[in-house]
Amino acid sequence: MIVVFTGNGKGKTTATIGQMLRAVGQGRKTIMFQFIKGPWTSGEHKFLKLHKSLKGKLEIHREGKGFVGILGDKLPIEVHKKAAQEALKKSAQAIKSKKWDIVALDEVNVAVSLGLIKAGEVLKVIKNEPQKMIVVLSGRGAPDNFIKRADLVTEMKEIKHPFNSGKKAEVGFEW
Amino acid sequence: MIVVFTGNGKGKTTATIGQMLRAVGQGRKTIMFQFIKGPWTSGEHKFLKLHKSLKGKLEIHREGKGFVGILGDKLPIEVHKKAAQEALKKSAQAIKSKKWDIVALDEVNVAVSLGLIKAGEVLKVIKNEPQKMIVVLSGRGAPDNFIKRADLVTEMKEIKHPFNSGKKAEVGFEW
Repeated sequence: MIVVFTGNGKGKTTATIGQMLRAVGQGRKTIMFQFIKGPWTSGEHKFLKLHKSLKGKLEIHREGKGFVGILGDKLPIEVHKKAAQEALKKSAQAIKSKKWDIVALDEVNVAVSLGLIKAGEVLKVIKNEPQKMIVVLSGRGAPDNFIKRADLVTEMKEIKHPFNSGKKAEVGFEW
Repeated sequence: MIVVFTGNGKGKTTATIGQMLRAVGQGRKTIMFQFIKGPWTSGEHKFLKLHKSLKGKLEIHREGKGFVGILGDKLPIEVHKKAAQEALKKSAQAIKSKKWDIVALDEVNVAVSLGLIKAGEVLKVIKNEPQKMIVVLSGRGAPDNFIKRADLVTEMKEIKHPFNSGKKAEVGFEW
């Protein structure tokens, strides 16, 4: 089953992580590959460091090289492309291995929008997802052919955001 | 800060749980009260049973009495109302205590739509939320005055759902 979380609102990555936690409670095995990663230290990684027994059940791998082209990014685009290719390769291996019940390609939609990987390459990787495996493709701006291919699509739509009213978000919570 | 997750799509509760996990990774304390609870055994509760060290850091309390008026529910409405009132009372205590960094009122929007509690009662409880505390109000059909009061609102909008194409959802994953 292919699930797409897209839209410009908050909740795409956290919904995936929450779903992974639920699945682990049901004895399932879940893994996430993060295609784009901000420069901050994320709470989910710290959480997993504190709960090492989750290895093999709930894994989150940082593959991206941070923001692309903004916030002081000075890396050549080729470095980002290589990182995204690597993330896709690892995702493909995880899907093929049939070892996992959820394989999440976090921010893969953004990696496609930025031209780091091609939508067709992703579609090829998820072409024959094992039965009962859930593959999550997340990130704003999901390509139309991902939505067409998906079984479940939720658009997280921003209705209101504290930045818009001049409020600063809580850094620790990474909204 | 008041956060509302609403809309008819998947991801409202899981986004909250994912956010709680992240916050716990940052050393924060988080608690959820579930106002409406389905009859199934949820993965998140099983997960927490397996990770007892999370008590005091990531807690999820089932307060609701299951579905209201559907799926064979035969409980008098008064029983549901009492459960929702109880959930609201506990939420109020958690907010007042200032012990928590995230207090999530899961499906509280639905409890209001069903007439189990009044929107005004909820607004009163969240009136003076402590600074730096995040209070999450989730569930489809958020009342307008919740959205008006909120700092951050995401609408989880269903674009595609496997039920619509006749596919049966994976029970274990509780989509």
